[in-house]
Amino acid sequence: MRLRFHKSLDDLKEKLLIVAGMAEQAIQRAVEAYRTRDLSICDLVDRSEMAINRLEREIDQMALDLLAMEQPMAIDLRFILAVIKINADVERVGDSAVNIIERVRDLQAYPAVDLPIDIPRMANLAAGMVRKSLQSFIEADAAMANSVLSMDDDVDKLNETTYYALLNVMKEQPQLTPQALDALVIARSLERVADHATNIAEDVIFWVQGSDVRHHMSVVDGSRR
Amino acid sequence: MRLRFHKSLDDLKEKLLIVAGMAEQAIQRAVEAYRTRDLSICDLVDRSEMAINRLEREIDQMALDLLAMEQPMAIDLRFILAVIKINADVERVGDSAVNIIERVRDLQAYPAVDLPIDIPRMANLAAGMVRKSLQSFIEADAAMANSVLSMDDDVDKLNETTYYALLNVMKEQPQLTPQALDALVIARSLERVADHATNIAEDVIFWVQGSDVRHHMSVVDGSRR
Repeated sequence: MRLRFHKSLDDLKEKLLIVAGMAEQAIQRAVEAYRTRDLSICDLVDRSEMAINRLEREIDQMALDLLAMEQPMAIDLRFILAVIKINADVERVGDSAVNIIERVRDLQAYPAVDLPIDIPRMANLAAGMVRKSLQSFIEADAAMANSVLSMDDDVDKLNETTYYALLNVMKEQPQLTPQALDALVIARSLERVADHATNIAEDVIFWVQGSDVRHHMSVVDGSRR
Repeated sequence: MRLRFHKSLDDLKEKLLIVAGMAEQAIQRAVEAYRTRDLSICDLVDRSEMAINRLEREIDQMALDLLAMEQPMAIDLRFILAVIKINADVERVGDSAVNIIERVRDLQAYPAVDLPIDIPRMANLAAGMVRKSLQSFIEADAAMANSVLSMDDDVDKLNETTYYALLNVMKEQPQLTPQALDALVIARSLERVADHATNIAEDVIFWVQGSDVRHHMSVVDGSRR
């Protein structure tokens, strides 16, 4: 009975890792579509977002069934609740990928331009945070989850630099405003991905340590609200 | 014993409604700060965001305790899970209010201008969605929750109109770009509030109907992804 229960918990974790990998890939693909202006990649992202949504529902249902039928105690209960919360954030990472390809499609109406910003770098940072937050979940490693919190500050700083760089482009070359505005929305979508990774890391810490770090000072740099 | 349990569920609901009211008020105040350029309102929003975060943690802990100690079945289990999910979205509505006042503070550096957009109207729509989604939760009314889903399409349309109106401002009056860009970020924050209200409404439907409407076609207008 307990053996079967622990097998179910492993299945749940396995499925969550699959959907998280798909969400991370969707972000990488969306930014690849931005870089190459390749609309066929946008269609791929649309399809994977649908698959992510389907998996999100399956995971929620599995978690609910486990809670209802097994009535788990203490650490297992916290684990299942962590899965439910992480699952919601993973699904919204997929939504952010779709927000990005909407702007990529919009950009097709305008000539390609070189903007003084680095979207692929931001995407790598944000996707790296998603990957690391999930890795901290697999390894039940609160210290690793904590390092994700400090990476979020880097993304926020990069996002602010990007904002002012694009503001300057729009002021000085107003004819590039449509492209700059799309890039700005993409940058903010990536910041949002980083926020979801941060939420995931906080849920991992909550699960592992049994203490709630959300909205507390980070032990890493003291700068979080 | 069951009586005490149901009293605890009522307390949980009560607390969630309080924090939701605070989050809705934070949005209204943030937009009032935008309208009046009154920085003292921004400080109020900062303070209520901190209070919202504190309450979010308390609600999560109460829900976890109820799950651990009472091992509720079926409908009560779904209710508690709905509270946990709604709680997370309510807290992020508070974050959106803070995103708005960050732009209000940035705007102090520039002269006030009249832009061809209607931020207060968008805010009323988005805050109305939050209110209605919570009301559908109080009344366990899936039809009311469904009406929130169709309101989200109105906000998305308004957000798109706002985007192109501001794009035009930036192209034709580049000197107004800083103000237009701040307004654009505020509009997108309000769209995000509407998304959170939509998530809440979906959780209410999941709880009430025991079926999962997320990512399904809406029965209202068929336009949701």
